[in-house]
This record gives sequence, C-alpha cells and structure tokens, in this order.
Amino acid sequence: MTDRPEVPRQPYVAVIGDGDPRGPDAHRLLEAAEEVGQLLARGGAVVVTGGLGGIMRAASRGAAGAGGETIGILPGPDQSEANEFVSTPIATGLGVVRNFVVVTAADAVVAIGGRHGTLSEIGIALRMGRHVIALSSWRVESDGRFGGPSIHRAKDPREAAALALRLAKEGPASPA
Amino acid sequence: MTDRPEVPRQPYVAVIGDGDPRGPDAHRLLEAAEEVGQLLARGGAVVVTGGLGGIMRAASRGAAGAGGETIGILPGPDQSEANEFVSTPIATGLGVVRNFVVVTAADAVVAIGGRHGTLSEIGIALRMGRHVIALSSWRVESDGRFGGPSIHRAKDPREAAALALRLAKEGPASPA
Amino acid sequence: MTDRPEVPRQPYVAVIGDGDPRGPDAHRLLEAAEEVGQLLARGGAVVVTGGLGGIMRAASRGAAGAGGETIGILPGPDQSEANEFVSTPIATGLGVVRNFVVVTAADAVVAIGGRHGTLSEIGIALRMGRHVIALSSWRVESDGRFGGPSIHRAKDPREAAALALRLAKEGPASPA
Amino acid sequence: MTDRPEVPRQPYVAVIGDGDPRGPDAHRLLEAAEEVGQLLARGGAVVVTGGLGGIMRAASRGAAGAGGETIGILPGPDQSEANEFVSTPIATGLGVVRNFVVVTAADAVVAIGGRHGTLSEIGIALRMGRHVIALSSWRVESDGRFGGPSIHRAKDPREAAALALRLAKEGPASPA
Repeated sequence: MTDRPEVPRQPYVAVIGDGDPRGPDAHRLLEAAEEVGQLLARGGAVVVTGGLGGIMRAASRGAAGAGGETIGILPGPDQSEANEFVSTPIATGLGVVRNFVVVTAADAVVAIGGRHGTLSEIGIALRMGRHVIALSSWRVESDGRFGGPSIHRAKDPREAAALALRLAKEGPASPA
Repeated sequence: MTDRPEVPRQPYVAVIGDGDPRGPDAHRLLEAAEEVGQLLARGGAVVVTGGLGGIMRAASRGAAGAGGETIGILPGPDQSEANEFVSTPIATGLGVVRNFVVVTAADAVVAIGGRHGTLSEIGIALRMGRHVIALSSWRVESDGRFGGPSIHRAKDPREAAALALRLAKEGPASPA
Repeated sequence: MTDRPEVPRQPYVAVIGDGDPRGPDAHRLLEAAEEVGQLLARGGAVVVTGGLGGIMRAASRGAAGAGGETIGILPGPDQSEANEFVSTPIATGLGVVRNFVVVTAADAVVAIGGRHGTLSEIGIALRMGRHVIALSSWRVESDGRFGGPSIHRAKDPREAAALALRLAKEGPASPA
Repeated sequence: MTDRPEVPRQPYVAVIGDGDPRGPDAHRLLEAAEEVGQLLARGGAVVVTGGLGGIMRAASRGAAGAGGETIGILPGPDQSEANEFVSTPIATGLGVVRNFVVVTAADAVVAIGGRHGTLSEIGIALRMGRHVIALSSWRVESDGRFGGPSIHRAKDPREAAALALRLAKEGPASPA
C-alpha cells in the first residue's frame, strides 16, 4: 500500500433541479437531466445529486447507465430513500439543509429547470465558490459588480455537460 | 400567570445584505439599511439580522435607535461577535449555515444590495416560504411558472419597510 | 443613542430535557425544570430552550412567571410551534440540527433527565466549550484525561440554578 | 440497465475518534483504528469517517489497505482536506455540524477513544437510532429506562468490528 494515490481525484459535478417536475416542460427537462448525467459520467465525473426523484433520479440514471459513480446526498436519515441509480447514498438527516451539502460537495453545479429549492442551491453554490451552469433554469442578475464564480447559461445538455466538466476540472472559484 | 399571552406576537423582519459593502453604492446602501431598520421598529417589528457588520449593523442601529428589539443570528459560537446594536444575540456556531436560520426565523425578508451570500439567503427565504423585498439587490427570474412567495422590488427604504411590515403580518406564503 | 451599551449582557442558560417525559419521574422532573427556570430568571439569566413541550415548556414557564426573557430555538420553520411561555421564538427550520444551536447559544447548560436527544445536546455543549449541570440526567465518563468544560452534578434545582448562574457568568470554557 | 439493483447495499460503519490523539494511549488507539478499518472492509462494509487525521486516517488506511471503500465527510468546503486513504470525499462546508452527518450516514458507529467531539457524535448517533460500539471510549449511563439503540462495549478491535458488522446489517434501531 502506498501512502499517496497516483491517480488524480475525479471531478464531482452536482446536478440539481425539481424532485417532481410538472407542466409542459417536465418531460424535456427529465430527458435533458438524463443526457447530462450520461455525458458527465462518460467525461469521467462523479455525479452528485440530492438522491431523490425527478431531475435527481434522471441524472443519476444517465450516469449509472454510462457506468459512472453517483452520489446521493439525502435529506432524511435513511439510505433506502435513495433512488435506485445512486451508487453511494449519504443519509444526512439534515432536512432542507442537505441542499447546502449537495452543492458544496461538488466542483461545479448544473441546474436544470427548478423552483425555489433550486434557486437556493444556485445561491449557495455561488456563495461557496462553485460555478453554476444553468439549463432552462433561473436567471439571476445583480446591480453590483464583483468577482468570483458565475452562472453560465447553456443552450443544450451537450453544452451544459462540456462546460461543467471543464469548470469542475479548473476547481472552485474563490467565493465572492 | 395566565397560560396564554393576550398580545399577538410581533412580526419579525430580517434585513440581509453585505457585511462589508464597498464601491460607490456602499454609503447609500448603509443609509438605506439604517432607515429600513428604523421604520421597521417604528412599525412594531423585531429586526432580525446576521448580527455582524455592514448592512446588518446599520439595520440593527436604525432599529435600536427607534427602541426596537434586534435579534442577531451569529455564525460563530461567541455572543461577543455581535455588533453593539443587537439586543438578543444568538450564537449558533453554524458557520455559513446560519444564513439559513436568519431568513427562516423571519416572517419576511428585506434584501439590500448584497453579493452571493445575499443571493443564497434570498433563495433560501423563498424556499422556506418567506416573501422577499429587494432594494437595489438581486433580480431573479425563472422560465417556469409556479406559485408561492415572490420577490417584490422596492424603490426606496420607505416602500421596502412598508411592504415588509404588510407581508410579515400576513405571515409566510406556502413554500413552492 | 450611544454606540456602546453600558449594561453587560445577561447570561444565557439553556435548560434541556425530554419534550414529553414519562414514567414515575416525569412529574418530579417537570417541577424541577419549572423551579430551575424560575431561579435562573430571578438570578438575571435569559432562559434558552428548544421551545417545545415537557421540560422546555416547564423551564420557560418558570422563567416567564418570574418576569424573565425566554428564548425558544424551534426545530420547525414556524414560530407558532413555540410554547406560550417563550418570549423570543426563533424558528430555525433545522430539524434535529437545532439541538446544536440550543446549547451553543447558551453560556451554560442545565440538563434535567432526558433521553438520547439530551445526551447529544450534552455532548455538543461540552464540544462547544459550555459547562453542563446535570440534574437526574446522564452520567458520562471517559478513560482519557483532558481539560475543557465538564459535567457538574447537582443534587436539586436550587444547586443546579446556582451553579449554572455562576458558570454562565464565567463564560464558556475552552473547547477540548 | 435494470431499474433495480440486484445486490444489497453494503453496510456503512462509521469510525469516530480523536483527530489528533495524544498521551500514552495514542499509539494503541491508532493501531486499533487501523485494525478495525481493515476488519470492517474485509467484512464487506464501507468505512465512513470525518475524513481528517488521527483515528479517521488510521481507520481509512486500514480499510483502504484491505481494498475497501472509504467515505470521508469533511467539515470544510474543500476535498483536498481529506486524508489520502479516503476514496469518496464529501466536502460539506458544515463545520462542526458535519459530525451530525458522519454518524447519520452510517448504519452503526464504532467509537475509539475520543474527547468531547466524540461524545457529541455518540449522543447524536444514539439520537438518530444508530447502535454504538465503544472501544476504550466514553461510558454513558442514564437514570432513566427507555428503549432504542445502545452502547456496546468491545474489549478489542476484533470484537468491535464483529459487533459493528452484525449491528449494521440489522439496520438502525428506532430512535428513542
């Protein structure tokens, strides 16, 4: 046993979005999440989600189908809450505070659609210095001018995954 | 001693923003925060902040000057971290997770300027069903359509405080 | 308005224990909690609890009856969850993690009876450098020898309150 | 790709203890942690730790040397904080609150030595329904009588690992 691993860590990319998407866009968003998960896994990334349904399950399914590792950061205290495509469930018991961990655990974050929970995760991600790639998701602007991480808008799953892989490998930005 | 208080609870309004505002707008934002704090206290609200400097201190100063109660939800484990205008310091030891408590503890939230930490608090506030009043702060839009709390843009401290008092008395919206 | 308060902060003492005590000791423990709350308020302390029923309500009732301030750090997102003797409710939304805040917010902690939740709060209190006064509560021993805060066993409510007031005024110990 | 995995989840066992053990017992405790980690991995368990030094590193080293998966639940926001034997680092940014996640993520918990942080984790583990196996660690007793998980004292690493594997496979007890 050597004391130092010789392989670099895999990048971690979080995919966030609605646990139960509805409305006319739901099907398209779920397909996008599955494709993003698949492309991230093919690109060598670990896919991190909140471990439950909807966008989380679709992204995990895409990654698992491509042979990737999938981490699910669960809100409750019970691993069995994880969807069946999560290879590494982490039962936190933190309730809504687990959103904080989902994005902090990742090197970059892809937001797909989403409601207020997703907006809170985008804000926390930026606060913690993680770049965010938004696909049909929130638009966020400030009067102020300051550095740090930012939101990159992607036009399709392919662009979202490519951006996420590139930014995740660069590592976190300095928190602003 | 009666078993039921006869007076209704005071509304709680959180004021969030930068702990160390810089740039050309800094002075204006600090003055706005002090005025908002003063008007909230005059309107009968308890002012909740993160208890530290900048916008937090200015809002607490305004409220304390008007004889109001000021709660400071501190990130560290030590009450002495609170600014001198906090009448009820709560030392949480939660680090950045304390942002979660600042907005959840309030019935409505006024955001004044702010960087990524403020954006994360806006997102958490909406996620927890709290209305947000934005004064020179983040603009946030979604492609999706869904109910729940929303962001109200105010043009000046007077409008921000009036809106906050009205929305806080109505109580939290249902989380979306 | 002066920039510095001239009065020292009041000491904060947390009272922790079972939210629904049962068994032959329940009545005695509730009476003890009420007496401890009363004595702490008379001694000038703010009483901090988890804001719900059982020991939390009894301690708050004792303190409120003596004219004291009572802070309730609630697990849910809704102030109305607080018992009627809480003068300053803090709705955290943190779930079980709110236990962390209850003891960190205090300068010293009185544990009365209690089950596993109380044991976790005792451990967190010691970890955060808070002295713990145990009344009919957990006994905790280690093989190791190390400094920092410790558990003081009290024989009755009077001794518990006196010890808590003294230790709270000394301030937190260094965390070990 | 099938929708249901056919293999059962591996049990997760947390190993907790001092991040920097000192004194005459330090060497013995570190050796015990490494042996426990090795035996847990051989027994098919994933080893969960706080991901840093001391007992955490020794247990991860033992497990990694036996080819096991090792999860490190880190307090800070940066994966590089993990020791080199962690195969799956989870950067939480939660500070001391990450202790909550370390034990909740596991099906059973082995405590080796430890100071107040370890005591807090034991309390949280029991609160969350996890059985605790103590090896040269805290002794904890209550006047009360109630069900739920309990602390099992082990005489050596072999007994600790065997107990942990058995209790982890039984799954969490009901929280008391």
